Amino acid sequence: MVEASGWVDVSGEAEVAAGGIERPRITAEEFRELAWQGVPYVGQLGCEILRFAAGDVVVRLPYSELLQRPGGTICGPALMALADITLYGVVLSLIGRVELAVTTSMTVHFLSRPAPVDVLAAGRILKLGRRLAVGEVVMRSKGDPHPVCQVTGTYAIPPEPG
Amino acid sequence: MVEASGWVDVSGEAEVAAGGIERPRITAEEFRELAWQGVPYVGQLGCEILRFAAGDVVVRLPYSELLQRPGGTICGPALMALADITLYGVVLSLIGRVELAVTTSMTVHFLSRPAPVDVLAAGRILKLGRRLAVGEVVMRSKGDPHPVCQVTGTYAIPPEPG
Amino acid sequence: MVEASGWVDVSGEAEVAAGGIERPRITAEEFRELAWQGVPYVGQLGCEILRFAAGDVVVRLPYSELLQRPGGTICGPALMALADITLYGVVLSLIGRVELAVTTSMTVHFLSRPAPVDVLAAGRILKLGRRLAVGEVVMRSKGDPHPVCQVTGTYAIPPEPG
Amino acid sequence: MVEASGWVDVSGEAEVAAGGIERPRITAEEFRELAWQGVPYVGQLGCEILRFAAGDVVVRLPYSELLQRPGGTICGPALMALADITLYGVVLSLIGRVELAVTTSMTVHFLSRPAPVDVLAAGRILKLGRRLAVGEVVMRSKGDPHPVCQVTGTYAIPPEPG
Repeated sequence: MVEASGWVDVSGEAEVAAGGIERPRITAEEFRELAWQGVPYVGQLGCEILRFAAGDVVVRLPYSELLQRPGGTICGPALMALADITLYGVVLSLIGRVELAVTTSMTVHFLSRPAPVDVLAAGRILKLGRRLAVGEVVMRSKGDPHPVCQVTGTYAIPPEPG
Repeated sequence: MVEASGWVDVSGEAEVAAGGIERPRITAEEFRELAWQGVPYVGQLGCEILRFAAGDVVVRLPYSELLQRPGGTICGPALMALADITLYGVVLSLIGRVELAVTTSMTVHFLSRPAPVDVLAAGRILKLGRRLAVGEVVMRSKGDPHPVCQVTGTYAIPPEPG
Repeated sequence: MVEASGWVDVSGEAEVAAGGIERPRITAEEFRELAWQGVPYVGQLGCEILRFAAGDVVVRLPYSELLQRPGGTICGPALMALADITLYGVVLSLIGRVELAVTTSMTVHFLSRPAPVDVLAAGRILKLGRRLAVGEVVMRSKGDPHPVCQVTGTYAIPPEPG
Repeated sequence: MVEASGWVDVSGEAEVAAGGIERPRITAEEFRELAWQGVPYVGQLGCEILRFAAGDVVVRLPYSELLQRPGGTICGPALMALADITLYGVVLSLIGRVELAVTTSMTVHFLSRPAPVDVLAAGRILKLGRRLAVGEVVMRSKGDPHPVCQVTGTYAIPPEPG
């Protein structure tokens, strides 16, 4: 299903892996378990994976009262949490279940005040090296094509045991 | 009270404002209400203001199960939330209750894996202009002098109504 | 002319402004004069504007001995200078000749070691506000589709005299 | 010699290494040769090392016409070049002559318009890991205590040959 904003919104689990050229090296379901259940501060957000292809991941943050910030908008830390799991998904989709991969830095640009609606975050890889991965996330409010937040992040990938 | 780490840990409310040269332009109590009560995703963390002087703020993130990440450490989004409120405190301590001041960007360096204990975040101002403020936050695990996270952030300050 | 990498390489001056939907608010020639002649440390690089549409600018950094770094690659500061003028072009293409627009921050990701050949930098706008503009630059070595450097930057736009 | 700004200005070569607790793992002279002679775009700036201790480096960028930007100030790319060599010095002072150590990212905050005078850059280490190093640089115009630019940067350290 393509939304007005031009974003692919894959809601059926069977289609989740259909978008990329290569198969992801971890399934959407395995990733969700790892990222949501192990990390309650992020898991409580109730995010949903809309797309999970290799190096190409879309995550939806459902709007809720928990995200509120005065002025009828969404607080920055919720957007940063969304960026973090989206980038983590991008990296694990390419390297598999490497639990020791860790974020080493993130730069976040808050571009516009998000409306009090769901936020869609699309992550993609910029560079996958043996030791570092760099990815980018762009977020939009549901139904609005303008980006509300842009993030770049770096992950350190541990050396493979030899 | 000075901890082993060299950080000032002011626990009495009366002493909170004692550290800076100038008085802050909002009280610690007013700031807490604004930042904690209006933003439930941040407020639930139960952070405590240890120091609230003009341009010089220390906030404690108490360790709890909510912050966990596999490996016995604290998840990145909780540290980013801590950075955000600390920087917001630094800026409001200097400009007063300007609710429309908003974060425009943040860069976060995750330096070391934090231990499962409280995190102390010390924020200070790098530049206070009429339209932009830039601040820095350095975080340490309680009782350990090594920084676990370093953050710089920019706030846009709305023009004063004339 | 479309190169193998998929980049538009407009070499004729007459075509420079042809790519965007809107006309840029400063000409490529005026921008070159402002950015190259007034700033000798950048001007000496001999960069060439390949595309100058509103919010959509491509600049070529010609390879030369001045750019060398041991290992047969190009030094980081030359890439940062290229990013800076490309972003400046993106912003002025949208707001016109506002000489007091200044860079307030830049985040640079060095993704791969560039080959000792020309570098092409494509800049686009992420957000144009009244007071801040945020843009992104992606650089590629000539003839290679992989990005070597990704940059985001923020400009402060002075208030219009009233 | 301590300047009014509180910065140590060591001009005698013999004193260069005196400031740190540990001896640097490369001499100031070796570092200068590596960083200045191999990289002409940076070397032409004529920077001078004022302090070169382990993880604690001060570099002076002498003012010259090459650095000019309209408005009687110094162009951003010259400050970014200064940041890059200062951080490179901080890292090599700690790990020695590891020529394959490379910058992977830099975030630059331009805080104030620098006066047309020398700029002093003080770099220090935030984190030295086996595979990544993170450092910070703060710049001031000579004779003025206010920072004009703040930079954080990350270096990838190649694995030791085994």
